[in-house]
Amino acid sequence: MASLRGIQQPELSKKLFKIIKSENHAIGAYESASRERISIASQLSDWGESTGDDSVSDVSDKLGVLLSELGEQEDVFAQNLEDYRGILKQIRNTESSVQPSRSHKAKISDEIAKLKYKEPESTKIVQLEQELVRAEAQNLVAEAQLTNITRQKLKEAYDLHFAATIERAEKQIMLARHGRRLLNLLDDTPVVPGDTRPAFEHAHQARQVLNDAEEDLRDWAPNLEPIHSTATEMGSNLMPAQAGTAATSVSGQEEESMVGPGESTQAQLEGPAPPEHRGFGSSSIVAQPETTPSY
Amino acid sequence: MASLRGIQQPELSKKLFKIIKSENHAIGAYESASRERISIASQLSDWGESTGDDSVSDVSDKLGVLLSELGEQEDVFAQNLEDYRGILKQIRNTESSVQPSRSHKAKISDEIAKLKYKEPESTKIVQLEQELVRAEAQNLVAEAQLTNITRQKLKEAYDLHFAATIERAEKQIMLARHGRRLLNLLDDTPVVPGDTRPAFEHAHQARQVLNDAEEDLRDWAPNLEPIHSTATEMGSNLMPAQAGTAATSVSGQEEESMVGPGESTQAQLEGPAPPEHRGFGSSSIVAQPETTPSY
Repeated sequence: MASLRGIQQPELSKKLFKIIKSENHAIGAYESASRERISIASQLSDWGESTGDDSVSDVSDKLGVLLSELGEQEDVFAQNLEDYRGILKQIRNTESSVQPSRSHKAKISDEIAKLKYKEPESTKIVQLEQELVRAEAQNLVAEAQLTNITRQKLKEAYDLHFAATIERAEKQIMLARHGRRLLNLLDDTPVVPGDTRPAFEHAHQARQVLNDAEEDLRDWAPNLEPIHSTATEMGSNLMPAQAGTAATSVSGQEEESMVGPGESTQAQLEGPAPPEHRGFGSSSIVAQPETTPSY
Repeated sequence: MASLRGIQQPELSKKLFKIIKSENHAIGAYESASRERISIASQLSDWGESTGDDSVSDVSDKLGVLLSELGEQEDVFAQNLEDYRGILKQIRNTESSVQPSRSHKAKISDEIAKLKYKEPESTKIVQLEQELVRAEAQNLVAEAQLTNITRQKLKEAYDLHFAATIERAEKQIMLARHGRRLLNLLDDTPVVPGDTRPAFEHAHQARQVLNDAEEDLRDWAPNLEPIHSTATEMGSNLMPAQAGTAATSVSGQEEESMVGPGESTQAQLEGPAPPEHRGFGSSSIVAQPETTPSY
């Protein structure tokens, strides 16, 4: 698309809209890095074979395997960032859905002010003031939903982002360290013209490096400081489930345990809807965040 | 450029030429990821401010600082890959410079074969056979230089590549772990409509997280298995310096110490030229790798 003018975003969600767009570019960059890295890995293996030097051929072929896996990890990272981006969209969608409620309230206030100036005796003023009370009530709900979603999803999004960063980093460190072991199997003692290089003596050890790398990747498990959330008790109306239990931390039992990126301590929004709650969260005037088409 | 046809590479260096080109794309992808990440970091800080929520504003501002630093590390990584790419070019340049020597030898052999078939009595055959001996001698030198450079620079290039991978990973792990600490300072207990959020109580701790991250980055030092090289003793003619000392490992003294990516255990090619050496490495017919313009 050449312009943003056609797809006007509500003021409230403009900033996140742009962040989500930028993240799409960042993710694209990691996908591209992944593709290039994997392609270079196989080219390196081909090149090594073409040198006609057994040692270079074996080492470069196995370097290629490790480099290709390093590239795969860039793609896993990109896919995890895609999930994080999806969580940012949930905040953005709530922002979009709250905008009409803010605008509606502002519009009625404006109308009342105008009428009071132009027709101070108009009976319409009373009617509008009643409408304003309802609009304010609706907006209070919408704003509460927005802050609830914003805080919960912000934590959830960056929990995932940082977990993905750590996963890529830890796996790539393992691969790179094994790569360094491989390099040490290549003898670079210079030869004089006419000398022939001795045959590659470390084929077995080179194979072992790959086996070790594979085993390390298989055994890898996330080891993360859990992110504590007290948002679990939120009902499907995005309000506290029950006043008495809202402050109970879900992560109390998990204080000592470490969790994986897939098992975030963040609560799911879709908890069982509470039968009753204080406030007017269950009212039908609640601005439910719509599922807008994903960007 | 739209086609590779105009810039024909010698057969011998075609594969590395393509690898170096692909690495340029990979590096570009990391640079792009870095730029996007840094831009998103500042957008996130702006967004947080616009929410009007003190806690979200403070946390997102500091998340922005950490994310921006994560982005910087992608760029540091890209610059290190650029150095690695420069080392691959040294192999490619040697390959390019060896090609004429191979071709020359092959051409004389062909001419001799043709003459022997067409004019078996020609006196030119003897002359060509003398020329072939010289060409073979020159080619032996060139091929020795090529294997010497190939092995040494392959190790050096991937020493750097893996060290850069580990540096980025270790620094990003530190940053991401501090990021998770920040997230835990944001209370996501849901509120009911009309409630006001308490003021942000953890501004001091949030500041401390950034200080800790800064200190960790400053204190970071590479901790790498050294790559051993026996190429140190190579003279400026790309041949072993002195027969008696060629097999002495330079990394003997460093066996126990860890080195940084800048202090690779790989020897520099530019050692003091040895006054004498065996073989004909010092002959003026040696194919010195030319410094071809960088791609």
